Amino acid sequence: LKGMGGTQDHLGAAVSIMEVGKDSVRGLIRFIQSDTDTLVIDGTVDGLIPGNKHAICVHECGDISDGCNSCGEVFTSNSSHKPAEGEFGDIIAGSDGRAEFRITSDRIKIWEMIGRSMIIHNCSSDRAHRPGQPDERISCGIIARSAGLFQNNKKICAC
Amino acid sequence: LKGMGGTQDHLGAAVSIMEVGKDSVRGLIRFIQSDTDTLVIDGTVDGLIPGNKHAICVHECGDISDGCNSCGEVFTSNSSHKPAEGEFGDIIAGSDGRAEFRITSDRIKIWEMIGRSMIIHNCSSDRAHRPGQPDERISCGIIARSAGLFQNNKKICAC
Ligand SMILES: [Zn+2]
Ligand SMILES: [Zn+2]
Repeated sequence: LKGMGGTQDHLGAAVSIMEVGKDSVRGLIRFIQSDTDTLVIDGTVDGLIPGNKHAICVHECGDISDGCNSCGEVFTSNSSHKPAEGEFGDIIAGSDGRAEFRITSDRIKIWEMIGRSMIIHNCSSDRAHRPGQPDERISCGIIARSAGLFQNNKKICAC
Repeated sequence: LKGMGGTQDHLGAAVSIMEVGKDSVRGLIRFIQSDTDTLVIDGTVDGLIPGNKHAICVHECGDISDGCNSCGEVFTSNSSHKPAEGEFGDIIAGSDGRAEFRITSDRIKIWEMIGRSMIIHNCSSDRAHRPGQPDERISCGIIARSAGLFQNNKKICAC
């Protein structure tokens, strides 16, 4: 896939360490803007219930001072857009509770996401963000600028 | 002070929870861009050595996957700028180990800082980032978008 094989052939890189929320759910998600149209999200999350669908999305803020609940609503550039640009559908864990996923989007850019948060819900995407539906944010992490996927320890930040 | 008394009279707000690094050092730092020229930084950090000067600065990345060491170098828009735009001088703790500080800068904007990291060094700003000087990053946190200082729980993100 474009942008995942080289060292500097991308327009920005970010990382989110998913370590806030339900104690048993933890993960690491990496983001690459491989060209102006293509955001690639690569993640591994552990501690999910095998087989359940979990909505994964960007929320407006990266403020975790009150856990995942201070991260605001799902990110959209225009509230009439359905689904919101911050909605990436669902992830599903295998029998070991681990979900490994690669998601691409041409609806959102990495520079719109930096400083906001990734959220994993306990429910599927057709139930998340819906008034009156039971919903819980089981994991979240701030989307932080990183030096890139395959960068060495010189840590020259490309973003 | 401008931008600190109202609810929406600012151009952006951010927060950094300082919880990575030396276990005893913890803090919370809030950022407001009160107008296009004025960044206001308000912070409280506990666990410092009373009376010691500690450099405080923005580093390039918000990647804390290897603790404060994966945050890259001090942020600057141009390496010839001295001090770097990300250098804010020193904080000093009182006899209880707590530093409470307000810093303003017209050299850096909040939207340049979002997704990067705040770092506190164990040494003063005239020794930090200098080759050959003993230096340790004792505390860091990702600079995350927040909904604003005095916002209620509606969590409408203004940034
Ligand atoms: Zn969501
Ligand atoms: Zn520094």
